[in-house]
Amino acid sequence: MRFGDLDAAGIAYYPNLVNFLHESFEDFFAGHVGRPYPEVYREGIGFPTVRVEMEFLSPVRYGDHVDIDLTVERIGRSSVQIRYLGSVGGRPVFRARNVAVVVDMRTFRPTPVPAWLRERFQAAMDPSPAARG
Amino acid sequence: MRFGDLDAAGIAYYPNLVNFLHESFEDFFAGHVGRPYPEVYREGIGFPTVRVEMEFLSPVRYGDHVDIDLTVERIGRSSVQIRYLGSVGGRPVFRARNVAVVVDMRTFRPTPVPAWLRERFQAAMDPSPAARG
Amino acid sequence: MRFGDLDAAGIAYYPNLVNFLHESFEDFFAGHVGRPYPEVYREGIGFPTVRVEMEFLSPVRYGDHVDIDLTVERIGRSSVQIRYLGSVGGRPVFRARNVAVVVDMRTFRPTPVPAWLRERFQAAMDPSPAARG
Amino acid sequence: MRFGDLDAAGIAYYPNLVNFLHESFEDFFAGHVGRPYPEVYREGIGFPTVRVEMEFLSPVRYGDHVDIDLTVERIGRSSVQIRYLGSVGGRPVFRARNVAVVVDMRTFRPTPVPAWLRERFQAAMDPSPAARG
Repeated sequence: MRFGDLDAAGIAYYPNLVNFLHESFEDFFAGHVGRPYPEVYREGIGFPTVRVEMEFLSPVRYGDHVDIDLTVERIGRSSVQIRYLGSVGGRPVFRARNVAVVVDMRTFRPTPVPAWLRERFQAAMDPSPAARG
Repeated sequence: MRFGDLDAAGIAYYPNLVNFLHESFEDFFAGHVGRPYPEVYREGIGFPTVRVEMEFLSPVRYGDHVDIDLTVERIGRSSVQIRYLGSVGGRPVFRARNVAVVVDMRTFRPTPVPAWLRERFQAAMDPSPAARG
Repeated sequence: MRFGDLDAAGIAYYPNLVNFLHESFEDFFAGHVGRPYPEVYREGIGFPTVRVEMEFLSPVRYGDHVDIDLTVERIGRSSVQIRYLGSVGGRPVFRARNVAVVVDMRTFRPTPVPAWLRERFQAAMDPSPAARG
Repeated sequence: MRFGDLDAAGIAYYPNLVNFLHESFEDFFAGHVGRPYPEVYREGIGFPTVRVEMEFLSPVRYGDHVDIDLTVERIGRSSVQIRYLGSVGGRPVFRARNVAVVVDMRTFRPTPVPAWLRERFQAAMDPSPAARG
């Protein structure tokens, strides 16, 4: 959490926390997917968000380090739904979910999730509900 | 929609559109409530968002003028729920809803919506469904 | 000056004031140049800044309306130098100057200032120093 | 360089690079000064920038990792002048200099640089020009 993310109350301005979701999605590519997001983007695949919902559970203060846990919830033909949990020192500060459509950047039209990417998304899904029972 | 709100695809970066919701809320104070938001804020009343949901219906392109229609949906003891509809030349581009808690900025604890403000919020509610039938 | 432009001290975060320069440049196109910046941009002419300097004379507070006075100082073959003066209620709050290069967006290489634009830039220059003596 | 820092040309929007200067200043506290900036800030010392100048030497593209080299150039009674050099893979992308005033956040008035901080700033100054000859 940087100085530029604060509002006048000295806590994170909430649209800046929405921006954290995208940064976390970018980090997920570099880390889990195994190919940097900018590289995938430059090859012509984009992930515009079509829906986001976010709950702010506790203020994020200046200097807080926010850990963001990302889970793939659902993979559609041309979309992916992702859940985010933000925490500061183990204390949850926000919960969010977004749906991104996979688009061909030349046409800006939806395109099927490429097989290699679908495989990586699947590996980031929760274990099956049964397994958790 | 300004140059600084765009992403590399030349359309609005979605966290910047979330920022538009706050700007619209500020404009609602200057226009409908009748007292500038900064003035109310400086007197010690804040409106941190605790929940937001937003759907992006159509890309917002550079140069688009976004009109935002704001409706108060629900007024609680210490909170207000607001619905936003963004459009460009009559074409809907986003729909959103947020819940803001009314807080005393000295304590950052919820405080009842002041009567003068509740009255203005109520005047910005939709007519009753019956009335519209 | 919007809530999202503030820092934790309740005044404008200075990189956000730099952003105001670009917004003022965009407004200058719509107003003085007579063609919206997005339209010119889409036709393939961009104006990346290669140099900026800015002095912050007085804090800009929440709710302040900043008037920005823009003057073209120098027009080169493929560049333009602009001076900005920001004020709040007649009180100067910042002074700035930037140099933007005119580029062909297909190649991102400098291109001569088109004649029609050069003419509009010239009309926004100060009267000659002699005239002011 | 994050997606949210880009402009429509797919390169860093320059006011966002100005924001990088502040982030670099914050990192300098955590790293070199030895006390996190948020902690110093909360104790009541702020560093508003009163002057900045910046040259953009080469576009910063999406995915570029920008290294920022920070040098203290001058320490005044209540101010500090800092030089920044940004580079991507050894290629310089920007050069900047800013002057920040040290203020008491209760009064927002300049205050002498505290001795412990002056000592840390001095250790981040270049060796004398003679020494480099």
